[in-house]
Parts: sequence; structure tokens; C-alpha cells
Amino acid sequence: MSTYVAPVKDMLFAMNELAGLQEIVGLPGNEDVSSDLVEAILDEAGKFASEVVDPLNKVGDKQGNKWNNGVVTTADGFKEAYATFCETGWNGMPASTEFGGQGLPVTVSTAVLEMWKSASISFSLCQMLTLGAVEAIAHHGSDELKATFLPNMVSGKWTGTMNLTEPQAGSDLAAIRSKAEPRGDGSYAISGTKIFITWGEHDMAENIIHLVLARLPDAPPGVKGISLFIAPKFLVNADGSLGERNDLICASIEHKMGIHGSATAVMSFGDNGGAIGYLVGEPNRGLEYMFTMMNHARLNVGLEGVGVSERSYQHALAYARERIQGKIIGDKSGEKKPILHHPDVRRMLMDMKSRTEAGRAIAYYVAGCMDRAHSHPDADVRAANQRRLELLTPVVKGWCTENAQGITWNGVQVHGGMGFIEETGAAQYMRDARIITIYEGTTAIQANDLIGRKTAKEGGKSMQQLLADIAETGSALRASGNAQLKAIAEALGDGIAALDEATNWLIANYDANPQAAAAGSVPFLKLTGIVVGGWLMARSAAVAAERLDAADGDFYKAKIATASYFAQHVIPEANSYRDAIVGGAESVLALEEALF
Amino acid sequence: MSTYVAPVKDMLFAMNELAGLQEIVGLPGNEDVSSDLVEAILDEAGKFASEVVDPLNKVGDKQGNKWNNGVVTTADGFKEAYATFCETGWNGMPASTEFGGQGLPVTVSTAVLEMWKSASISFSLCQMLTLGAVEAIAHHGSDELKATFLPNMVSGKWTGTMNLTEPQAGSDLAAIRSKAEPRGDGSYAISGTKIFITWGEHDMAENIIHLVLARLPDAPPGVKGISLFIAPKFLVNADGSLGERNDLICASIEHKMGIHGSATAVMSFGDNGGAIGYLVGEPNRGLEYMFTMMNHARLNVGLEGVGVSERSYQHALAYARERIQGKIIGDKSGEKKPILHHPDVRRMLMDMKSRTEAGRAIAYYVAGCMDRAHSHPDADVRAANQRRLELLTPVVKGWCTENAQGITWNGVQVHGGMGFIEETGAAQYMRDARIITIYEGTTAIQANDLIGRKTAKEGGKSMQQLLADIAETGSALRASGNAQLKAIAEALGDGIAALDEATNWLIANYDANPQAAAAGSVPFLKLTGIVVGGWLMARSAAVAAERLDAADGDFYKAKIATASYFAQHVIPEANSYRDAIVGGAESVLALEEALF
Repeated sequence: MSTYVAPVKDMLFAMNELAGLQEIVGLPGNEDVSSDLVEAILDEAGKFASEVVDPLNKVGDKQGNKWNNGVVTTADGFKEAYATFCETGWNGMPASTEFGGQGLPVTVSTAVLEMWKSASISFSLCQMLTLGAVEAIAHHGSDELKATFLPNMVSGKWTGTMNLTEPQAGSDLAAIRSKAEPRGDGSYAISGTKIFITWGEHDMAENIIHLVLARLPDAPPGVKGISLFIAPKFLVNADGSLGERNDLICASIEHKMGIHGSATAVMSFGDNGGAIGYLVGEPNRGLEYMFTMMNHARLNVGLEGVGVSERSYQHALAYARERIQGKIIGDKSGEKKPILHHPDVRRMLMDMKSRTEAGRAIAYYVAGCMDRAHSHPDADVRAANQRRLELLTPVVKGWCTENAQGITWNGVQVHGGMGFIEETGAAQYMRDARIITIYEGTTAIQANDLIGRKTAKEGGKSMQQLLADIAETGSALRASGNAQLKAIAEALGDGIAALDEATNWLIANYDANPQAAAAGSVPFLKLTGIVVGGWLMARSAAVAAERLDAADGDFYKAKIATASYFAQHVIPEANSYRDAIVGGAESVLALEEALF
Repeated sequence: MSTYVAPVKDMLFAMNELAGLQEIVGLPGNEDVSSDLVEAILDEAGKFASEVVDPLNKVGDKQGNKWNNGVVTTADGFKEAYATFCETGWNGMPASTEFGGQGLPVTVSTAVLEMWKSASISFSLCQMLTLGAVEAIAHHGSDELKATFLPNMVSGKWTGTMNLTEPQAGSDLAAIRSKAEPRGDGSYAISGTKIFITWGEHDMAENIIHLVLARLPDAPPGVKGISLFIAPKFLVNADGSLGERNDLICASIEHKMGIHGSATAVMSFGDNGGAIGYLVGEPNRGLEYMFTMMNHARLNVGLEGVGVSERSYQHALAYARERIQGKIIGDKSGEKKPILHHPDVRRMLMDMKSRTEAGRAIAYYVAGCMDRAHSHPDADVRAANQRRLELLTPVVKGWCTENAQGITWNGVQVHGGMGFIEETGAAQYMRDARIITIYEGTTAIQANDLIGRKTAKEGGKSMQQLLADIAETGSALRASGNAQLKAIAEALGDGIAALDEATNWLIANYDANPQAAAAGSVPFLKLTGIVVGGWLMARSAAVAAERLDAADGDFYKAKIATASYFAQHVIPEANSYRDAIVGGAESVLALEEALF
């Protein structure tokens, strides 16, 4: 078993060169943040990830959570690690200073969150859900609710959940049936069954604050009749101490393919008259409020894709450096060499490495957009970054999680037969990764958002602006006179042409033939991911080409080689996605349902 | 949970139209085989697969095998099902009549074996290993060994195994260290540890016949010093009754990602002086003998890819027909419709369906080659089929198993969140499928065989002949005047051009730059699979186009739609593989090992 080592240098490179960290630390509100501080935070977080979080990963997978009559017991070590995580301030770190967080730029917290996700997705989910709930309450809750719940949630003393899904309401939240009846005192009696509630019940914190979507008695049908409530596991007394147990219980936990370390709960609300809940914001605007946090959560799930990919790569690389097997083709040294020297093993590792770096590049770049959209003094810059952020949010979620599937799969393949043996550890990353293209909106849901609201419905303006930016990078690389950069620019040019053609087709067909557009939606998302990933890899290579003579020139040499791999092996897929979008809808839709 | 239903009509279509069943049943030795008989066999096998084998799949996954002090207990129902399997003659069905089998054409037994693999890969492996051992003994063993072991192995009273792998000798069998010392009486004392031994120990049969690779004391080093031995769990007395327990034991079983229903054993030979073994054939030719059965086993593992894909497709389809979720885009009926109507769900199902049918097409086509290579009266036809069989064996193994990864993955995705819950059953197919790109030679090992011995080393003659046959189909489709067939032919033409270019590049570079050739080997295998799959789908469509007016015209309509999907969505990938092969080696090999 390898130990996770946070790739701090790679992270800082992506933060500085792609997300624009220098600009971000200079933005209003970031006066206390310096590059040195960021580096120190990343070093400390990296240590914590290796020493405290990483050891949880396997034990969580193996032991899972135990359910007994509504009580859930986490695997050995989780409780203690969580306590340390909170004590050292990592839990609340990304939150606003107003409630006890450190108010760091999203770009910085993104890098830190990637580390928790690499070290243990299961463990990291608790913080992610809690901070998502914090965000929703902070944006939409009353001052009283904020004062009652936020400080303890930010510190991690209490954790948070999102109760959306019901058996009949998964991707389609319009079908939610849970009810909220006014109790006459300003609170509500919540009843209903929620499923797939991550960290819905556990023993790491003294209270769990459930955010619950439910319908008021007079609510209109569909998505416009859903309200958001807070229903704590234990009611909170006026003095902030814990009161009675609320009428909600974890009815069971799921037996899942992966992320065994985090319980996925079936939550039953109101078996004895109704769980006491508090309305967040205005009635019937619950879904809108949930989306405030959901968009951020989607970026974080995309980041899970990056994190688990990085971990799987490190694990496979460690094995490939050690394992000796077979003669290396074309090698005349006569030495026994590890399998890293086999060309196909190298191909798999380069594929893992380049896609992981491209995923990180997009995730961090979008984090930078978020920081600028939030804090830049120029309203036009804020607006432009907001548009870019919105355009690429489904791409970060969809593409980084889809990539993680092939990456973690290759991570097993590099190990040969040992990869299939659970003790080796490689299989767990693949099993854990399997949920991330599903939760927080499946890839199809992301793709639907990308082709519709984010592209066709605004006439493709944001996408064309993005393509113009990408083309500019291509021109710069071509003008550089550097043969490697020119080759990358050429591949990128093919990608731009493919995405441009697909975008034009989409805009021409979206209204007239929505089913055809939807048939190509996931290929369109993947195509976008490849081209944006290729763009950021090209930018990385351009920066690296200037620094080959530096003391750490090898680091930059590797950046160019990795970008070249991406250009030669990944970007060519763009054409096949374009073909599938532009010419493939008919065959997706041709077969009558009875003939499947 | 859906129940597996053997796709008998699809199977017969592939057997008749692609493998050439009519010709095969007319070959010498097949006098007792008629089309009616074949249909009856498939119907009966389909029933057995649904009723007896399919119910084992889940219980095997959940319970796994229990190991206790060398004794392995199978999951509930396996023992009884295996007894029925043997009693009804299914175990020995594919074997030669000489030892109690039914001597059916490989094309027929291939379809039947696909059913066992769909119903339960774990269960099917026992028969596969036993018949592999039967084949090795039948081809290379003495008459005495054959008489002693084969009848009971064919009937299934005794099962067989292949003991190849050792901890330091996986893909590289040259590193085998197990020893065989002559005992002076013609037998040998075997010692050593073998790992990853499928069905190495269990409670379904009274004896287990281990085929073991080991070295004689005077053996030359490397692959030329490995001999093949039979080491039965219980020695066999002269009268055929069971004698003493041999000095071999199952030291432990593995905790695997999938195929939990079949124990994967660590076998320890000779802890107490040496397991008694019998040399098969001549000394030092063990690896060559193993390859007799390994090539057939590779085809059968390819078939596992088809079988598990079919099962995963049926499972996902059943869910997609039932589950109601969300509004169907562009649908104005106002009805609640199942998710099968969502364009992206259709896309996933079409992808699963078309790749599964293409995989079946290749596997059955190659089975047909095997029958003709074995039994055709014309020596030239035999030789041509033998060449085609050899060329495509690594493609069946590599491509059908690689395809099964994406197919079973989509099978989970169609289920949304439910796919991640183990009780749903979709995840098991994905976990089970994960081993098939590894065992019996990883995809890289197959690809190495394909680019080297099967292509470059013979100047690409077999590949060029194949490409000529494919081009001929393309011409016929273009000449047909049918617009759908012409569109398929056009896509196929792109595929042919890509494979042709890649083949020429390979031949030009294989000797001069073997590492570059190896860097593109897996993409080359996938490219070949796509083009050959596309060819056979095109041939299917051409046959179907003639039969649209038949009573079962819908079946043929579906065949054309499925072939069109393959042409529009899968064949376009050919170009990106060509690019990776022809232009991608440099970036695979560029990074110094230290910089990974």
C-alpha cells in the first residue's frame, strides 16, 4: 500500500498559472491571504491528509458502518480523526469568517478539499455535506437560524445533510411528496421518507442538522411547491444546548458498491407525529435555495473525480515502480526492470496522469472564476467570470467524474491480477468512484444543463467566447516557434473545430428537435471537457516551456510531456464525439421501444 | 431483479449468418447435427440457464466461498446446481464424443457457453477450466492418462484446474519456480506455490485434477524449461477408485472485487515431501501444451465479455422499461413514461446493445473459423480459417472483454442511484467483469500477440486479407441502393482506412522501433475490434435488409438500427485510435521514469 502524498507542487502550478492565484490574493477581502500563506496551508493540509485521513480509507471500506436500531457506528478511527479534523480547524476552513471559518478564496479551499477527497472520499463527504448546508442556511436562513446552527456546523461540532431524494423522486425532484404542516408556533411538522442521505446518521458529532425538501399543505404541484426546512436530530434549546430528540430516525443504511466509509441513510421523518422543522427563507423556493449549494456541491463532486484519480494514479505508479515482470520490449540492457518500463504500462500511467492534471486544471480554473465572480472590483469582470463559471460547472462535475472511471479502471489494470484482489487497494478507488457520475445530478443531468440553459438557450454566446479564448491560446502557441507547442496547438485546433461544429449544430437543432439534441448531450459534455482540458494543458505547456532552464526544469519538462500526451491521445477523441452529436441522433432514437 | 433470458434468436442469427452454421453442420464429423437439433439445444440450454444457473449468481456474489483449514465450501445451491448440470450432460457437452462429450461444433457450444456466462460467470468458470484441462490432456497426454482422467472430467464427476501463476510469475511465465523431481517410478514429486487458481478447491466434485506447470531438475532456464504435470487432489487407484489424498492443499482463497461465487485459490504443493504428479507429453514442452488450451480459453474469456454484457443489458433494459422518472424532453403526450424514453438512456442502451451484438458477432464468427479450420475437407479453406482464427483470437479476448467494461458500467448508470446499491444487482456485473481484461492474458498481452506474431511478423498478410474481405462487404452495401446500408458502408470505409493506415505504420515500425509499436498495441487491438465488429454488424444489416417484409420483420428492423448505431457512434472511434497509434508513441515514451 502506498501512502497518499498531496501533489502540492502540481496544485500550486494549477492555482498560479491557470486559476490566477496572484490576482485572486489581491482581490478585496483577501487582504490576509498571501502566496506564502497558501503554500503553508497546502503543506499542512497535505500532512494531515497523509497522516490522519489516508489511514481511514481502507478501514472504512472494509468495516463500513454498522446500523443498529437507528444508531450508526462508523468504522474504527473515524470518530477520532473527525475530532482532530475539527479541532485543527480544517472542517470550517472554507467557510466564511462570519461564522468561524477562515474565509479563504475558493481556489485555495479547492486544493485543500482535493486532498481530503484523495485521502478518503467517504470521510470528505461529511465536511462537504455540512458546508453545503452551511451555505444554504447562510444565504437563505433567518438571522435566528444562522445564529442557532451555523457556528456549531462550521466548527464541525454538528454536521449537516441534504435530504432531497425520495424513492419516486431522484433526478426528478418535482415528484417530492414529503410534507410539512404548520404547527402554529412558526415551526412545521415534517413527515416523509428520504433515501440516499449521505452521512444521514453517524456517531462522529453530537447533532446532525438535516436540510429537508418538503411540501407545505397549500403548495402548488411540481418544482414550484417545494420548500426547504431545517430539521435537527436533536432540538436546540434557547441557550444553545441540546434538547429533545426530534421525530426522525435512520431507518436503515444501504449496502453499496463503494464509499463504504460513509453511511448512506434511509431517513424517516415524522413516524410519531412529525419532526419539528424550521422553514428556510420563503415558502416554495426550496429547490432554488438547494441549487445555491448544489452548484457548489457539483464542483466539489467534480473535484472528487480529480482526487480519486490522483490517488489511483499514485497507487498504480508505486506498484509499477516496484513490480518486476517480463522482459521490456526493445531493451538491450539485460537488466530486470520494473513494469513502469513496459510501453503499455507507461501508456496507462500517462493516460491517468494527463487526464488527472487536465481535470485538476479545469476544476481549479473554475474555482478561480468563482473567486473573481465574487470579489473582483470590476462588474464586467465579475459578470464574465460568472458566465464562465456557470458554463463550466456541469463540465467540471460531468467530465472530471467520467474521467475518473477510466482512470481508476486503469489503476486496477496496471496491477494485473493483484488489482482484482481487494487487499491491494486499487479496486476500492474504482468502486468508490462509481457513484460520482450519479450523485449530485447524473452526467446526463449535467449534460442537459450544459446543452440547454448554458448553451442553446443563450444562443451559444458563452461557449463562443470560451472558444475564442481557446483559439487565442492556440495562436500564441503556434507563434512561439517551439515545435512541441506547435504540435499541441495543432491538436487543439482540431478540438476547437470539433466543438465549434457541434455547438453550431446544437444551436440549430435544440428547439426544432430537442430529442436529437438530448441524444448528443453527453457526447457534447465530453467533447467540451476534452477541448477545455486540452486548452488548459496547452497553457500549462506554454508556461512550462519558458522555465525549462530553471532549477526545477524537470518539473516543467514533465508538464510539456503530459500536455503532449493529452494532445496526441485524448484530443483526437473530440472528432468521434462530434460525429456522434452531429450525425448520431437518428440511430439513438430509431428503435421503437418494443424492439429493444 | 430481472431473470436472464437467453437471446436465442440473436444467437441463431449470428450462428447462421455470420459463423456459417449451415456450412458447418454439413462438414465431415457433424453428420448428426442439424439446424433443428441446434435450435432444440439452444432452447433447452436457455431454460437451464434461466432456471438453474441464473439463481446462483447473486447468492454466489453475496455469500462467496468459505475457507476453513484447506476446505472450501461453495455458496448455497452451487453443489446441487452443479450436480444437475452434470447429470443433464451440459458439463461435457462441448467435449469430444471419444470421452463422453457430444462432439458438437464449436459454433454451437459457443452459444451454449455464452448462456452459462450470462447466467453466472462464477459458475461457468468451473466447466471452462475443466474442459480446458480435458483439452490439454486429450491432445498431449498418454493413453493411460486419458483413460484415467478424461471420462470423469468430461462427465463433471471430477473438475480440472490450470496452475500457472506464481507470485513472481504472472504475465511472465518464464519466471516459474515450482519444481518436479522424478520419484523413480515414472511419477514426479511436485512442490511450489501457485496463486490465482480458479476453482482450485471446492466441494462440488469428489476429485480435482490440477494441471501444473513446473520445472524438472535438469530443465533449461526460461520458458523452454517448463513441463506440464497432472496432480490430482486424490490419487486414483488402478481400478479408478479414489486413493490417498495427494500432498497439495488450498492454503487460502482470495478476497476479490468480483466473481465471488468461484474460489480463487492459493495452492500449496508438496508441503510434506511432494505432491505426486504425472508428466503430460514430453518434458520442457509444458508451456506449448498450455497454449493449446489457452487459445481456446482466451476465446471463452472473450465470450464471458459477451455474456456478462448481455446480462447487464437485459438488467438495465428491464429497469428502464419500468422506472418512471422525469418528463421526457420533446414529448407532448403528457403521459408519464418510463426512462427508456429519455434520449440519453436510449443512447446508453443502444451502446450496450450494439457493442454486445458486435462482440457476439466476432466471437461466433471466430468459432465458425475454428470449425472450418478443424473439419473442412479443403486444405486451403482449413488453412485460411486457421489464419483468421489465429489473427482474431486476441481480438475476441481483448476487445470483447474491454467492451464489457463500458457496457456493464453503463448498466449501472442506467439505474441511477439504485445502480450503486448492491441489492439492485447491476453493480455485480461490473465487478465480475473487471477480471476478464486481466486473466488468461491481459489486454496488453493480447495486443502484443496481435501486433507481433499475428501481424508484423508475417508482414501483415492475414490482416490485409481480412481488410480485403471487409472492403468487399463495404462495396456490396454501397451497391445495394439502400440508403441505410450505404451510410453504414461509408462509416465502415473510414474504419477500413484507419486500420489500413495503422497496419502499414505498424509493419514499417515494428522492427525498427519496437517500443513505439508496443505503445500503440492496445489502441491497435481496439481499432481492429471496432472495424471487424463494424464489418460483421454491416453484414448483419445487409442480411436484415432483405428480410424486412418477413413475418418477424421487426427483428430485422432492430438489426439494422443497431448496426446503424454502431456505424455512427462506435466506428468513429477508429480514427482516434489510428491517431494514437500513428502519432502517439512519442508522448507515451517521452517521460523519464523519475518524472512520473
